[in-house]
Amino acid sequence: MLVHESDTITAIATPIGEGGISVVRVSGPGALSIAQKGFKGKVELAAVPSHTAHFGSLIDNTGETIDDVVALVFRKPHSYTGEDVVELSCHGGMFVTRKLLETMIGFGARLAQPGEFTKRAFLNGRMDLAQAEAVADLIHARSQTAHRSSLFQLKGGLSDKINSIRDQLINAISLLELELDFAEEGYEFANKSDVSSHIKSILNQIDELLSSYQIGKLYREGVKVVLAGAPNVGKSSLLNALLKQNRAIVTDIPGTTRDTIEESLTIGGLLFTVTDTAGLREATDPIELEGVRRAEEQLFNSDLLLLMFDCSRDLTEREVAYARRLLKDVRANRKACIEVINKIDLRRPDEKFLAEAGVPADGYPIVRISARTAEGLDELKSLLVNTVLTGKQISEESSPTITSARHQSALTKAKESLMLALQSVTNKQSVEFVVVDLRAALDSLGAIVGVVTTDDILNNIFSRFCIGK
Amino acid sequence: MLVHESDTITAIATPIGEGGISVVRVSGPGALSIAQKGFKGKVELAAVPSHTAHFGSLIDNTGETIDDVVALVFRKPHSYTGEDVVELSCHGGMFVTRKLLETMIGFGARLAQPGEFTKRAFLNGRMDLAQAEAVADLIHARSQTAHRSSLFQLKGGLSDKINSIRDQLINAISLLELELDFAEEGYEFANKSDVSSHIKSILNQIDELLSSYQIGKLYREGVKVVLAGAPNVGKSSLLNALLKQNRAIVTDIPGTTRDTIEESLTIGGLLFTVTDTAGLREATDPIELEGVRRAEEQLFNSDLLLLMFDCSRDLTEREVAYARRLLKDVRANRKACIEVINKIDLRRPDEKFLAEAGVPADGYPIVRISARTAEGLDELKSLLVNTVLTGKQISEESSPTITSARHQSALTKAKESLMLALQSVTNKQSVEFVVVDLRAALDSLGAIVGVVTTDDILNNIFSRFCIGK
Repeated sequence: MLVHESDTITAIATPIGEGGISVVRVSGPGALSIAQKGFKGKVELAAVPSHTAHFGSLIDNTGETIDDVVALVFRKPHSYTGEDVVELSCHGGMFVTRKLLETMIGFGARLAQPGEFTKRAFLNGRMDLAQAEAVADLIHARSQTAHRSSLFQLKGGLSDKINSIRDQLINAISLLELELDFAEEGYEFANKSDVSSHIKSILNQIDELLSSYQIGKLYREGVKVVLAGAPNVGKSSLLNALLKQNRAIVTDIPGTTRDTIEESLTIGGLLFTVTDTAGLREATDPIELEGVRRAEEQLFNSDLLLLMFDCSRDLTEREVAYARRLLKDVRANRKACIEVINKIDLRRPDEKFLAEAGVPADGYPIVRISARTAEGLDELKSLLVNTVLTGKQISEESSPTITSARHQSALTKAKESLMLALQSVTNKQSVEFVVVDLRAALDSLGAIVGVVTTDDILNNIFSRFCIGK
Repeated sequence: MLVHESDTITAIATPIGEGGISVVRVSGPGALSIAQKGFKGKVELAAVPSHTAHFGSLIDNTGETIDDVVALVFRKPHSYTGEDVVELSCHGGMFVTRKLLETMIGFGARLAQPGEFTKRAFLNGRMDLAQAEAVADLIHARSQTAHRSSLFQLKGGLSDKINSIRDQLINAISLLELELDFAEEGYEFANKSDVSSHIKSILNQIDELLSSYQIGKLYREGVKVVLAGAPNVGKSSLLNALLKQNRAIVTDIPGTTRDTIEESLTIGGLLFTVTDTAGLREATDPIELEGVRRAEEQLFNSDLLLLMFDCSRDLTEREVAYARRLLKDVRANRKACIEVINKIDLRRPDEKFLAEAGVPADGYPIVRISARTAEGLDELKSLLVNTVLTGKQISEESSPTITSARHQSALTKAKESLMLALQSVTNKQSVEFVVVDLRAALDSLGAIVGVVTTDDILNNIFSRFCIGK
């Protein structure tokens, strides 16, 4: 599916901000000539070999110098997009970088849309669709597992698996179609029970991929945790204690919301986003109800509840009622929960306390901690990881994991078609029916790697990229 | 002053954030070998020519792949720092970029300090000190004039001028020292009045540079404007009306504080930062006083007051008192002021209104506008530019402008030494005295371009850089 785009696109490829280097990327048939219009160096960019860097000045259309630049030339097809590409590195100021971009646009390039460079890489066969999607995942990755699964996908690990399943399907379809061609002669090429076991084997492989989705989603999106409990049970202290040991990992990632009640940290390579519910802040009933309502609301969009108790004092009736109500919601929504008994450095929780809290009866894992002394924190952390991974297959580094809802949906569709095909075989229906369903499954799988796509799908996929990629 | 640093430094060179490309820079004698430890490609980085780019994978010390990278190799002395440099470009995610940085550190590079790459460029003679300082100015530039003056300085424009003055000084000193050598023989090489006019000519050139400082400072730092007036006189409307025409220029610069009462816009290439004073917010006296106090406080750190009146209604006594008090401060602190009569679309201000406002009597420029219809906005904008530039020499594009307090201070010192030298000549003092002062002036000028520096000065200069430059 080689497409030759006729226009040349440009964008700031580095993050927006002040830094030592900013890069403006130009890609397309006019990349060399457009960049050359502003480039004053010892060489002509059109004359230099691919993969070489050249120092020069960048001049705007009034002849004014914008900055010293290094022009890095990649010639088609040996570039990210598969087109001629020039990457202009300048001193990384916002004003300079923008002027450089405006100059490239003034000289005839068009401002790229989000993901358009990667879209061109896909359209020019430099990567398949699943790999292209992995590029955006890799950029957004904030944890080890997210990084690992997106890189695996970028390197073609998922595509290889999908393509292998597609090959098996194509084999089956070929045999059946051959049979159709010779239908009048009454030949039977494919043994029906062979076809049936063939389809079953493919179904198994798809099921395996689908079962990796839950864990893959956790890898990619992280685990949403709601932290609830009465005031002063130590919610903030716990958050700070956990963050303290993880600060290096989350510290200056933009968007890490230090000023709101949401905090992100990684444990065991998984990203946990913890929301403090500000649950039982006030003593008056209407506000208390509002607190519960909010906690419930957040619970609805989360994966796990951390319910905290303070064992240095006796529980109040209101606290107990609040906890009961939240736990009822956890059960109703099939969420995970960990019960955290805090302040064990002040008083050890006795049977009476635990009974009042209803803790052992709940059946949820309990952990006794002191946020102040950090006792029990390691246990809590392993519990957090184990609880969310419970019952989920932990994928090997080298096994494909489904992380994208689009892929899950395509695999589910393929599965449905294969089930129909299997039914037709079992019911001894005409071969045509089987082939139609197998072809539908093939198309569904093809949509993952991009053999079969529509403009809508492409636009939808690439719109979630940043501009400049 | 060639210095060979023994260690190899590394840092993320692109701005922090998510983007299409992030670059980790490695510089120093071990750059090639350290980068090679993580680089798996078709080539050995140590074997490739300078200024070439190579695709490969970046592997950490456990053998796990971090990302696909392009390694761009610059060999000493033909690099930014003058040392061997490898720039590793990866897919621009935070997690990936940090892993890449950590890997380079793990393989033996040291995390660079702010500005350390540029400091090495200076120490290795790739640029002089004034040029190195211009790099940071260029990165921080947010307006056309700031960009232009820092680029001029980066290209060596200021250094050329300083070096030319130094050459003239060295000539004078040489002649006088020759005379000292032959003092016993009674020779007189330098005609005293020649020496005197020589020094005067140098003094003139330094004065010219010094006089460019006020405007240079405006170029670099922009103009701080305080916007004051009673509630509903239209302060926010004016700000919005001005911003609307400038939005494209300021829009997504990080740090442009859209959520506070400070807004930045450029007019005539100058950056104006406008602070809304929230002056007379409340009707009760204590708070009113607080409003005045705050406006006064902000006025103290600003260059210009925009004092607004609403001519669609009569003035209140409180407003008049507020305005009188602010204007008194403007006078006392010798700040500039523009009086803005708003809402002329509703009612034209008559003599009575203006007399009550005391406006013509103040002697400050008055402009009649409608923030709603944009009438008078262009006049206000030229007034803004003209008011801050009044009495200041607007420098030609190609003439050196002093933008740095350090340079101003060095030039002032040089001037003082030259005045002393001139005095000695006039008083017919011994040639030794003249030479000592001329040498002091030479050293002061040398500090600007970095011929004479101390570690303290260097550390102070480079600490205001970002890491990665």
